[in-house]
Amino acid sequence: MGHLQQLTGPADLARLDDHELDELAAEVRDELIRTCAPRGGHLGPNLGVVELTIALHRVFDSPRDRVVFDTGHQAYVHKMLTGRADRFDRLREEGGLSGYPSQAESEHDIVENSHASTSLSYADGLAKAYALRGEDRHVVAVIGDGALTGGMAWEALNNIAETPRHGPDKRLVIIVNDNGRSYMPTVGGLADHLTALRTSPRYEQLLDVVKRRLNGVRGVGPAVYDALHAMKKGMKDALAPQGLFEDLGLKYVGPVDGHDRQAMEHALTQAKKFGGPVIVHAVTRKGFGYDAAERNEADQFHQIGPFDVLTGVGSPKGRIWTDWFAEEMVAIGAERADVVAITAAMLYPVGLDRFAAAYPERTFDVGIAEQHAVTSAAGLAMGGFHPVVAIYATFLNRAFDQVLMDVALHHCGVTFVLDRAGVTGDDGASHNGMWDMSILQVVPTLRISAPRDGVRVAELLRESVAVEDAPTVVRLPKGAPPAAEIEAVDRVGTMDVLVRDGARDVLIVGIGSMAAVSVEVAARLADQGIGVTVVDPRWVKPWDPAIVDLARDHRLVVCVEDNGRVGGCGSTLLQLLNDERVATPFRQHGIPQEFLDHAKRDTILERIGLTAQSLARGIVEEVTALDRGAADGAAPAAADGLSQRRR
Amino acid sequence: MGHLQQLTGPADLARLDDHELDELAAEVRDELIRTCAPRGGHLGPNLGVVELTIALHRVFDSPRDRVVFDTGHQAYVHKMLTGRADRFDRLREEGGLSGYPSQAESEHDIVENSHASTSLSYADGLAKAYALRGEDRHVVAVIGDGALTGGMAWEALNNIAETPRHGPDKRLVIIVNDNGRSYMPTVGGLADHLTALRTSPRYEQLLDVVKRRLNGVRGVGPAVYDALHAMKKGMKDALAPQGLFEDLGLKYVGPVDGHDRQAMEHALTQAKKFGGPVIVHAVTRKGFGYDAAERNEADQFHQIGPFDVLTGVGSPKGRIWTDWFAEEMVAIGAERADVVAITAAMLYPVGLDRFAAAYPERTFDVGIAEQHAVTSAAGLAMGGFHPVVAIYATFLNRAFDQVLMDVALHHCGVTFVLDRAGVTGDDGASHNGMWDMSILQVVPTLRISAPRDGVRVAELLRESVAVEDAPTVVRLPKGAPPAAEIEAVDRVGTMDVLVRDGARDVLIVGIGSMAAVSVEVAARLADQGIGVTVVDPRWVKPWDPAIVDLARDHRLVVCVEDNGRVGGCGSTLLQLLNDERVATPFRQHGIPQEFLDHAKRDTILERIGLTAQSLARGIVEEVTALDRGAADGAAPAAADGLSQRRR
Repeated sequence: MGHLQQLTGPADLARLDDHELDELAAEVRDELIRTCAPRGGHLGPNLGVVELTIALHRVFDSPRDRVVFDTGHQAYVHKMLTGRADRFDRLREEGGLSGYPSQAESEHDIVENSHASTSLSYADGLAKAYALRGEDRHVVAVIGDGALTGGMAWEALNNIAETPRHGPDKRLVIIVNDNGRSYMPTVGGLADHLTALRTSPRYEQLLDVVKRRLNGVRGVGPAVYDALHAMKKGMKDALAPQGLFEDLGLKYVGPVDGHDRQAMEHALTQAKKFGGPVIVHAVTRKGFGYDAAERNEADQFHQIGPFDVLTGVGSPKGRIWTDWFAEEMVAIGAERADVVAITAAMLYPVGLDRFAAAYPERTFDVGIAEQHAVTSAAGLAMGGFHPVVAIYATFLNRAFDQVLMDVALHHCGVTFVLDRAGVTGDDGASHNGMWDMSILQVVPTLRISAPRDGVRVAELLRESVAVEDAPTVVRLPKGAPPAAEIEAVDRVGTMDVLVRDGARDVLIVGIGSMAAVSVEVAARLADQGIGVTVVDPRWVKPWDPAIVDLARDHRLVVCVEDNGRVGGCGSTLLQLLNDERVATPFRQHGIPQEFLDHAKRDTILERIGLTAQSLARGIVEEVTALDRGAADGAAPAAADGLSQRRR
Repeated sequence: MGHLQQLTGPADLARLDDHELDELAAEVRDELIRTCAPRGGHLGPNLGVVELTIALHRVFDSPRDRVVFDTGHQAYVHKMLTGRADRFDRLREEGGLSGYPSQAESEHDIVENSHASTSLSYADGLAKAYALRGEDRHVVAVIGDGALTGGMAWEALNNIAETPRHGPDKRLVIIVNDNGRSYMPTVGGLADHLTALRTSPRYEQLLDVVKRRLNGVRGVGPAVYDALHAMKKGMKDALAPQGLFEDLGLKYVGPVDGHDRQAMEHALTQAKKFGGPVIVHAVTRKGFGYDAAERNEADQFHQIGPFDVLTGVGSPKGRIWTDWFAEEMVAIGAERADVVAITAAMLYPVGLDRFAAAYPERTFDVGIAEQHAVTSAAGLAMGGFHPVVAIYATFLNRAFDQVLMDVALHHCGVTFVLDRAGVTGDDGASHNGMWDMSILQVVPTLRISAPRDGVRVAELLRESVAVEDAPTVVRLPKGAPPAAEIEAVDRVGTMDVLVRDGARDVLIVGIGSMAAVSVEVAARLADQGIGVTVVDPRWVKPWDPAIVDLARDHRLVVCVEDNGRVGGCGSTLLQLLNDERVATPFRQHGIPQEFLDHAKRDTILERIGLTAQSLARGIVEEVTALDRGAADGAAPAAADGLSQRRR
């Protein structure tokens, strides 16, 4: 039995000697690789923080001291060290461990949010709280160099640096986990500054040693560490204020080799003693200790699907929604020299790598900086370009005000491609893209499209980039679109009719990925003698006015969307029909307005009733009630009499 | 006739000599004071940028070169110099000049948004556009030191600093207008850094001269300027990289006395020649040249109401919504040591100055940094405190993701007091607080209250700070609450019934400031024999379930809110009633979902039909149609038959 399985909590780390701690680090790496291989996960970042996390938990006293991980996907090691090693093999399974910190799982976890750049603000608040009460507790924030490019981090640093005018100073240690990359190599002036710190002569020396260690790290022996001890003499011992952080008034220790556990412990101990806010600059390598990960050019296994441990090769992926976008963007780029692309540190995940390869000068990676992505897009639009901002749907929340005030108010033609929209599942509550179609409804002039299949991705992207005076949205779900194109039987206004039989009992408005589900519902209902029209609106904001008469011509309208029920497309359609005095009963299906626990996408869709089976069952019940109401002369739902008459 | 009235555009500035330019500056100041005195406005900031703006327009060639003002309220001088001096006396009037830049007004205006910290992102986008096309045009951004504390500015600086890997460098000049204050003295590490730059010995010398100039500046003569010429020799001539900006890789010129026009011209000319991004650090004084403004401790007339030119004394203000909050906060602070207050650089406008005076150690001004305000509040809540974040409603848009992911997902008890909610009017589209009650609807667990009068502000604030596991909102309109308390005649669940007669024709749900209007509507309808119930829900999210039966018991439901129609309270009420199969016809009144042109609040409310007269007229028409429908057996709206039966 290894050290890892015997750990009951971080306090146990104190009784391990250096050699045992090295063995522990190797065990942790093995467990990371073994667990992620069959199920995927954020392997690369966690391989990079093994020693850092061990050192952290040896120096600080969690949960009395609080540890906040920025973008909590780097907390796997922390989970193992805080009594969850035995359950780690059920990572990201329903009922198993979350892929992020979770208050429900452990008292050692505090921040669950996986949106980047928040940790310093949380930490500032916590540290203020302890300082106000005079409690001798430390707050430790672990933040990557990528997350430092987010505006929130700057706002926080600016506040952390301020010496309180009242009461004691904050006891706050910021570990900058600098691997030179977020998903992609980190961009911008800050990254250059960190590089400058890293490439001081002293550090060059250190880096050489790190490089030499790369080969032997799995099962690394004490000899290697002995050889490294000489290094530590070179480490700056004093709390040396330095450059940018100094100018902000923050103490700085580093750079420290983040894979040298003893050096990290030494630096953290110094920082802890200081009594005010301190930055510890740890240099690490994403994927450290696993060749296949380190050598991966795209993202060092930042987040991978299942893969083979020996070769590091992942299972072949099908063609996902993103691929359809990626290919059409390249084609559009060839035709239109005015189309430019913007990503917020996610070139590969959003599929802009292909556009970037073809048109590097027209591709802008702004770092983890969604606000700047959007407003610089407005600037580019004012300068005569049509920017396509490709971003995960959930991250657009970060730039809502910029979409509204900077793009829409200024009549800028900017297209937002919102990837991983709807239920995403595995990554927990903060990754589901279930807010975008609600909050964007309030933005005047903005138009939203939701493709039902791959062909429509290309089609709606083209319609979007043709709009020059207002923002447009193309919304892509996670995963793969229907294998075959879903062809329309008719076009009404800008809407596609996918199914139409003569009976006109039920109109199903199937939005985006729910269009395919709606077609399946129609087939089930046809078996039961219920006549169904399925319409894919294609554009859900604004609604095509023809939807009003379509609704009037049916006995029941059912709207299905892969977005929160509150304020989404169903809500605006209900409002429109109510404003237009349409009396047809209306039923709205979407994601319940709550934070969803992590599970597979399909499992969640089943749980929340967004499956063909569940929807068909509900509609049958509704129609039966309508029939009964019509027969009785009583009205279980509004104005059945009216729609009966119309038929 | 002065120089100002003869200016047809910035090109005319070239033909004025130094003496004439000094006279022009004096004329501009006179015009600023004269125009703002009877109507109010952002006087202080504009008095601080007179020379800076003249210099800018002499060195750069607008509109070929583009000038972007951050928080455009500092663009009054720019307006006068770009051909709008003749219309300046109609500032902020309906049909007159906007208080912010306006594309519709002038080709010299480009960014209309008055939310802070956006200018650098716009400028980065514009400069990228010109660089991509190889156009020799400059982009100039004017940003205050306060706005630099906003995270967006950091995201932009980080990108601006990056040397493009493809194509020519950006021609971008950033003028940091450093007056040491946003609304309040600027806080944080950055402010300290700027102070350090400012207080270099060379600069101390410069400051002395500036101080000496204070006395003579209105009608300042050439002698004063002559005396100053000696100064300029002391100015750093080289493009000297410096401190924080250097670390980011940005060239830096300064500090320059922003009230020395010639020194400013010199610095800007150097910056223009450089060919890449440059920061020009201009030190100015808010309110410069007008004693009454400079001596105002609170905000140097940052934004004032009407005032007397000679004394600088404003008209006495009535007791506004904010005052009710301010007083209750002090009382709560005395009772609960765990209640803390957070402001984003707006201590006075949101009424937290009184709390700060009583409990300085429990008051946190985070700078213009709404994201940090919200997430550090989450941290404080996790640390055992109950933060009250007081912020303008429109600025909460900036922190939507933080409210959702950092506060709500983490079950933090944080109270948001959203001031200036609803139609605000004078300050144009970006200041209306018409989005908050829509976007916040999607946040699980969050509760929203909307007080109808001053007494309810206190009451709902207390109910809010009592919620310890979820975010709460208290929403305050602009201006003054009803002079007298609006007493309830009954309480149903958590709702107050304000008017009830036996007839139960119409249920009016009057939200927040619309409750008083609804009571007035009821009086008008009573005159016409229509029976009305008026309910103030007090809490509009979640809806009290009792609203469902109330709605069923009436023939018509009318919901009135001072928020955007899309996704607001009317929408969620309609959804609830539809889900519950309530057949009563439902009418929804709110702000049309569009960007509103600036005008007085009352004028806008009239224009959009949110007045008692307009609402009453609409309801009479509805009821008449219902009566006719009932008589005819036809149904102009849903299910009248049903509600008729119920009566």
